[in-house]
Amino acid sequence: MKTLIKNVRILTMDASFTCYELGYLVIKDDTFIDIGAMTDLGADHYDHIIDGKGAIALPGMINVHTHIGMIPFRSLGDDTPDRLTRFLFPLENACMTEQLAYQSGKYAIAEMQLAGITTFCDMYYFEEALAQATDEMGSRAILAETVLETSPDTDYPYGGLKIVEGFIPKYLNHSLITPAIAPHAPYTNTEESLSQVAALSSRYNIPLSIHLSEMTFEMDKYQNEYGKTPIAYLADLGILNSRVLAAHCIFATPTDIQILKKKDVAVAHCIGANTKSAKGIAPIQAMLDAGIRVGLGTDGPSSGNTLDLFTQMRMLANFHKTHLKNRAAFPARDIVRLATMGGAEALGMSDQIGSIEFGKKADLILIETESVNMFPIFDPYAVLVYSAHVGNVQDVFINGEQVVANKTLTQANLGELRASLDTEMIDFRKEVAARKE
Amino acid sequence: MKTLIKNVRILTMDASFTCYELGYLVIKDDTFIDIGAMTDLGADHYDHIIDGKGAIALPGMINVHTHIGMIPFRSLGDDTPDRLTRFLFPLENACMTEQLAYQSGKYAIAEMQLAGITTFCDMYYFEEALAQATDEMGSRAILAETVLETSPDTDYPYGGLKIVEGFIPKYLNHSLITPAIAPHAPYTNTEESLSQVAALSSRYNIPLSIHLSEMTFEMDKYQNEYGKTPIAYLADLGILNSRVLAAHCIFATPTDIQILKKKDVAVAHCIGANTKSAKGIAPIQAMLDAGIRVGLGTDGPSSGNTLDLFTQMRMLANFHKTHLKNRAAFPARDIVRLATMGGAEALGMSDQIGSIEFGKKADLILIETESVNMFPIFDPYAVLVYSAHVGNVQDVFINGEQVVANKTLTQANLGELRASLDTEMIDFRKEVAARKE
Ligand SMILES: [Zn+2]
Ligand SMILES: [Zn+2]
Repeated sequence: MKTLIKNVRILTMDASFTCYELGYLVIKDDTFIDIGAMTDLGADHYDHIIDGKGAIALPGMINVHTHIGMIPFRSLGDDTPDRLTRFLFPLENACMTEQLAYQSGKYAIAEMQLAGITTFCDMYYFEEALAQATDEMGSRAILAETVLETSPDTDYPYGGLKIVEGFIPKYLNHSLITPAIAPHAPYTNTEESLSQVAALSSRYNIPLSIHLSEMTFEMDKYQNEYGKTPIAYLADLGILNSRVLAAHCIFATPTDIQILKKKDVAVAHCIGANTKSAKGIAPIQAMLDAGIRVGLGTDGPSSGNTLDLFTQMRMLANFHKTHLKNRAAFPARDIVRLATMGGAEALGMSDQIGSIEFGKKADLILIETESVNMFPIFDPYAVLVYSAHVGNVQDVFINGEQVVANKTLTQANLGELRASLDTEMIDFRKEVAARKE
Repeated sequence: MKTLIKNVRILTMDASFTCYELGYLVIKDDTFIDIGAMTDLGADHYDHIIDGKGAIALPGMINVHTHIGMIPFRSLGDDTPDRLTRFLFPLENACMTEQLAYQSGKYAIAEMQLAGITTFCDMYYFEEALAQATDEMGSRAILAETVLETSPDTDYPYGGLKIVEGFIPKYLNHSLITPAIAPHAPYTNTEESLSQVAALSSRYNIPLSIHLSEMTFEMDKYQNEYGKTPIAYLADLGILNSRVLAAHCIFATPTDIQILKKKDVAVAHCIGANTKSAKGIAPIQAMLDAGIRVGLGTDGPSSGNTLDLFTQMRMLANFHKTHLKNRAAFPARDIVRLATMGGAEALGMSDQIGSIEFGKKADLILIETESVNMFPIFDPYAVLVYSAHVGNVQDVFINGEQVVANKTLTQANLGELRASLDTEMIDFRKEVAARKE
């Protein structure tokens, strides 16, 4: 199967930011096999030809931190200071079932596909059901089962450790899914459970995702109890290494940044969620300067509400420029890089995805420029960061398969996905109503 | 002409935030004449019935600060520190013509209509041509001719003062357009020109729009030369009053806020533009606490890039929550109020627009909830602020006329508007190319 996409403006996001104002690209099965300027396009046979006239082609975006089981929570208690204890934890324990997580997962994956997210890194419960959802939807993902003292998918303390015993081997050789493990945060897990998780990650050579340096009480706790930061604490425990993806790192100190670099830990920067919850702005300029791998995440749909990276790119620009008092900081091109190659690097997948290059997996999005907000285009990166919105995503390919065509899912029906999730939410809604009284 | 819109979730934005989960509203000619719950809808004859099933009805949004002639500049030099002197001023002087401003104006108004902006306050040159554009497009607007020593639409110093002599009387009694006047900023205008502008505003009882307390050099200048803030300087000059709409006020001090309140000056808060340019965060919580009228603005399309208030509402939430270190600050409902009634108050039009109430002008938008990002809805205000994007705007009515139906302009063709603007941009593009070398 050979597909030609022609007459398209290509931002390859390769190391030299090669662009083609009018270019073509060829996908063979799951792989890019040719990219160039239209003037260099020779004659050949293609099974499928797409005229991308007017569109901007970009590698698929990569959302490196989310919780796809949490769609039911969206718009619930957003501005409530005690939402975690009032809504999130009790509702998760009372109503989160495998079926609800699965239906939420399918919906969230559909939402990400429509948003041009071709790869995501999830961290939730019932991760094997979420793997099934991911497989059915055809997205690329790292799926990390959460390890926590109590979780809705197990009766054992730190039962996530048991769950992954079945989950990991089952998905170790999947073409699109990488199983992983996620201790929720240092402060929610015992040292023993953290060490067990790290041992599992090492044994199977799988990613380890964790919330880190996110809360002021977390910083205080480790200062008071150990005289160190949570990052230093985890480093001293011996569980930081290049398989670790640390979400947030809002309060990382200069010394923490040195540790993260030395241990080659990657960081998931979730600017929208971090600022909506008034937590703060992670020092990612310093992290990038230190050579740390940084990707962008939305966090879950109850924290960041949207699952697309357009909102994150714009927030990132404005927050970091203002924070650094420098309008030239984080130019648009660097931000688009964070949403693509940056994410691939953070997930340890930059040899496979993150840019449009010969031999890489064909994860690709076409963004239309017919909509009113997309004119004029003096700088396509600036248009993507400052003007575009998720509704401009037109076509999406994952691993060579077209999952979105003309802003519509090809492999699922959105109305049906919503109806299934809505039906599954009956008990959840009852419990919400009870808690609102 | 009597139109019924039924089966719609209505957020009236009246003083008690009345909502109807399943409501109806009736528009007679240009006015709302009935609003209620579906259960109270009696039998009557309507010329037109719209089933708003699933949609959220909201008063039209109000963009209180923009520069609609500046679409040609979008995505040009966004991250360039010297963009004002390198691109904006020279290009305006070299290439901004009446025709280019007019075509840009029509395009920008189309963009705002599609975004659910039913009223805007503009500040640019060739404002009479922009009034023609506004009239043709059927939007509600305050249009303020800029007064500056040199402007592209006049050869006289402060020629804007002469231009308005024809412009103001012509539009004083227009049903949708209010003529106005806009000294660019205190630091760009002589005291004499500022006083002349204020006198004109008083004589015709028309709004006066001005950029104020926006730049650090502006703050330094007035401190060094007068030992006061620019707000105190203008107050002492005697030109602050309830007709004045001050854009930005980023660096307003507590004393400045007292002055603004005492003089009943309204503030246009442009969080997106202010933070993209790394200027800072205006203290609007303190302004609102003091009882100052505050509306939301995008600033021009080269500063804020988008002309919609969804981007501004989300930015406002995240920036102010983080700045105030309080996730409960600026709850979603208050932000939606700023985008509607707040804008109406800032423009001195709250008796006519800003809420869906009996007797008010029928400026109305319907936002669809079928798109993937609009589910579930536990709090419609939170959905609008944290999840929605401009692409969710489905239908827009201004003064009882439907200007957007099913996401499409009814009174203009977007492709034609773009083609006309593009054609008019030929010289502009040449000049840009020359300056980029
Ligand atoms: Zn998270
Ligand atoms: Zn302005």
